[in-house]
Amino acid sequence: MGERPQNVGILAMEVYFPVTCVRQDKLEEFDGASKGKYTIGLGQDSLAFCTDWEDVVSMSLTVVQSLLEKYDISPERIGRLEVGSETVIDKSKSIKTWIMKLFEECGNSDIEGVDSTNACYGGTAAVLNCVDWVESSAWDGRFALVIAADSAVYAEGPARPTGGAGAVAMLIGPDAPLVLERRYTASHMAHTYDFYKPNLASEYPVVDGKLTQTCFLKALDMCYRKFCTKFQKRSGKPFSLKDVDYFVCHSPYNKLVQKSFARLLYNDYLKDTTSYMSELDAAKFQPFANLSLEESYTNRDLEKVSQQAAKSQYEAKVSPATLIPKQVGNMYCASLYAGLGSLVHSTSDRLAGKRVILFSYGSGLASTLFSIHVRESSTVFSLSNIAKVMDIEGKLASRVEVSPKEFQSTMHLMEKRYGAKDFTPESELNTLRPGTFYLTKVDPLYRRFYARTPLASSKVGLKEANANGYLH
Amino acid sequence: MGERPQNVGILAMEVYFPVTCVRQDKLEEFDGASKGKYTIGLGQDSLAFCTDWEDVVSMSLTVVQSLLEKYDISPERIGRLEVGSETVIDKSKSIKTWIMKLFEECGNSDIEGVDSTNACYGGTAAVLNCVDWVESSAWDGRFALVIAADSAVYAEGPARPTGGAGAVAMLIGPDAPLVLERRYTASHMAHTYDFYKPNLASEYPVVDGKLTQTCFLKALDMCYRKFCTKFQKRSGKPFSLKDVDYFVCHSPYNKLVQKSFARLLYNDYLKDTTSYMSELDAAKFQPFANLSLEESYTNRDLEKVSQQAAKSQYEAKVSPATLIPKQVGNMYCASLYAGLGSLVHSTSDRLAGKRVILFSYGSGLASTLFSIHVRESSTVFSLSNIAKVMDIEGKLASRVEVSPKEFQSTMHLMEKRYGAKDFTPESELNTLRPGTFYLTKVDPLYRRFYARTPLASSKVGLKEANANGYLH
Repeated sequence: MGERPQNVGILAMEVYFPVTCVRQDKLEEFDGASKGKYTIGLGQDSLAFCTDWEDVVSMSLTVVQSLLEKYDISPERIGRLEVGSETVIDKSKSIKTWIMKLFEECGNSDIEGVDSTNACYGGTAAVLNCVDWVESSAWDGRFALVIAADSAVYAEGPARPTGGAGAVAMLIGPDAPLVLERRYTASHMAHTYDFYKPNLASEYPVVDGKLTQTCFLKALDMCYRKFCTKFQKRSGKPFSLKDVDYFVCHSPYNKLVQKSFARLLYNDYLKDTTSYMSELDAAKFQPFANLSLEESYTNRDLEKVSQQAAKSQYEAKVSPATLIPKQVGNMYCASLYAGLGSLVHSTSDRLAGKRVILFSYGSGLASTLFSIHVRESSTVFSLSNIAKVMDIEGKLASRVEVSPKEFQSTMHLMEKRYGAKDFTPESELNTLRPGTFYLTKVDPLYRRFYARTPLASSKVGLKEANANGYLH
Repeated sequence: MGERPQNVGILAMEVYFPVTCVRQDKLEEFDGASKGKYTIGLGQDSLAFCTDWEDVVSMSLTVVQSLLEKYDISPERIGRLEVGSETVIDKSKSIKTWIMKLFEECGNSDIEGVDSTNACYGGTAAVLNCVDWVESSAWDGRFALVIAADSAVYAEGPARPTGGAGAVAMLIGPDAPLVLERRYTASHMAHTYDFYKPNLASEYPVVDGKLTQTCFLKALDMCYRKFCTKFQKRSGKPFSLKDVDYFVCHSPYNKLVQKSFARLLYNDYLKDTTSYMSELDAAKFQPFANLSLEESYTNRDLEKVSQQAAKSQYEAKVSPATLIPKQVGNMYCASLYAGLGSLVHSTSDRLAGKRVILFSYGSGLASTLFSIHVRESSTVFSLSNIAKVMDIEGKLASRVEVSPKEFQSTMHLMEKRYGAKDFTPESELNTLRPGTFYLTKVDPLYRRFYARTPLASSKVGLKEANANGYLH
């Protein structure tokens, strides 16, 4: 009973990141770090962050409302809304329930889905759940909406430059340009303490930097192997990077994306699927053929050789997906999808017909490697229109660069704000783009109130907005 | 491409609640409350609670391991595992990742799903997600597992007697005895502050008792109306309580379940589908025909008349599902499914062929009304075997009743434990059933370690277990 709808996947995307950002080269200098430590060592350009005018709820409101408006989709046409986030404002009330405010006016409250949580992985859980919903007998013909949103902040120290903030909204349905090849999905889930947030009163995580990098690469190995096995079993053909046009990788920082892609070449070498490599490159892996798995994660020579062998392919297959992650920093759950958005932005004219593989990783740990088959669409959900609507170029150009000092004092302010009640935002960094939701106050019962800047063409400072009576 | 598998639903269940419990009549007396305030006013018999030997992770481990063992299911046969909970031990690492320990030995890490969160609703989100997964093109023939688990604790005061603790595990797959009629699912989601946990350092919620009761009944109204509309649209027949054999309701306390069921009769009266009522009963609703919706939530006379009209049907259709919720208290996410377990326990010999409707509610808010069509199964997943495996009678009989004073001092201890590091459990209430996982220590990095009591036939005290070297 019941055929499944076809080509279910991502129909449309919207990306949001705060205007406020700090440059990594300036942060290096300010922190007294060696030159290039953040820009080359981490591979990051700059870092976006929330002031106390914004939070994970306001970013989610912004990105959803913008997507609905730009595609002229009535809120009635949404049948499922699910959020992936690890930014905890409330331990019980889901972020999704705040977003329901946007659906109240049209009277649509029959919207399944809540929040999915596991570190940076929640967005992927939400995407997979929504795709499955459309394919299930529960589907009623309406769209699903996924929000992946986070504010990533770290205590003062070496991890702080790996922060970031942002949100991505994705519309899910059949006949999509970005089709999830759901039957090839490969996951690796395990119990680890590589990055976690057990100190409930603090926004900062406990991080074991070395362990989390090994966990990340191990998870990638496990997922890639299972993916190749499933692909071969279900399509009858072997799978290697030759079959991959683009690779989008969760990006805690760009250097780990470089290492991850290089690791896939090493995997191909080990399973002897290196037809796409020059004999010269393949030969370079030979000294590492019998390395134990554990050793392989820490061997510097292997890392170097792999990255060299991967270099030209990295430029072609990975680099187009790194724009926002390098410019904005780690957006946790939103990171992978900001990478996908970057890819569509960079290659919309040549993406049709291609296969993209995506690696999602959330510490603790949950990880999945999955495939997207790209189709052109002649509707409003065309690749070129997705790129146009996201306007990543425009959003990056309209940013407000602040000094490391201002960034630091904002982090101090945010420490005070975390879990607090009875305050109104006071950061002087109060310029927001048009159509941005922001926090107006948190009352003595911790209840949060939001308003939106007008949809004008120019940037609007919040103080002017208040003076002009724009708050609602 | 691809037919969906048929009759997807719940194949098997296991239920767990702590042995430690306190009687509500004694709690009334201890609290200086008027006689009957908790037993009749709330409708509760007793309340189970965790000492510092147990937490949401240990309860989840216990219930999953027990289900796998009792049904002799190899961990390799699980392809998805998802947790619904609002008990936050870590703000990033999902409970699901701890449970992966049980799958490590057999090398199965390809298990999709993380945690779903919104107050008491997460378990339902997990069930719906898992059913959709089985129906989707992602399904690889393996089972899904849902865990709904919570420890519900309240600050000293009027809400404390509405606490409880427990976990339910459910095996999901095709050809199930408890089939989810997914196409009739009706949800109501909204932004409310009726019960939430914004004080991150405290385990206790902020509760607006009056508001949350109204939100609950409103959500039930909304879901029931949408459900009836969908049923009529998709089956061509009107829907009323006449079509319901059993009603399982999320149970913050039993009195609200009574009110909820009575509210459904009022709904039927308003939409003129009262053929199952006596003319006399239907006539009693007449004075309230033109009550405004808002008034109807607080009108005492309507409440009285509705409950009177509902009484005999409540005994037949609702009461069998209230056993555990009345004996154990609110188990938040596990509550609804402990109700379903109670129903199977009480009616396994006559449940086949029946329709059960379930109402899931999580503050904030997320709510869904859905239908289960019951089929007999001649496999190990028969109704009688589900009842036998759960052994609810045995579990209730083996409980250890403690005094209100001991309960109070345990709550004080647990306040100290919440979010703490570097401790070993010290509660004297250290008797656990055989095969129960428990916390052995939390190290200075907040990492938690667990062990399991032996699968002997007698109860084992932890101190003896430690002495006998059972910890691992």
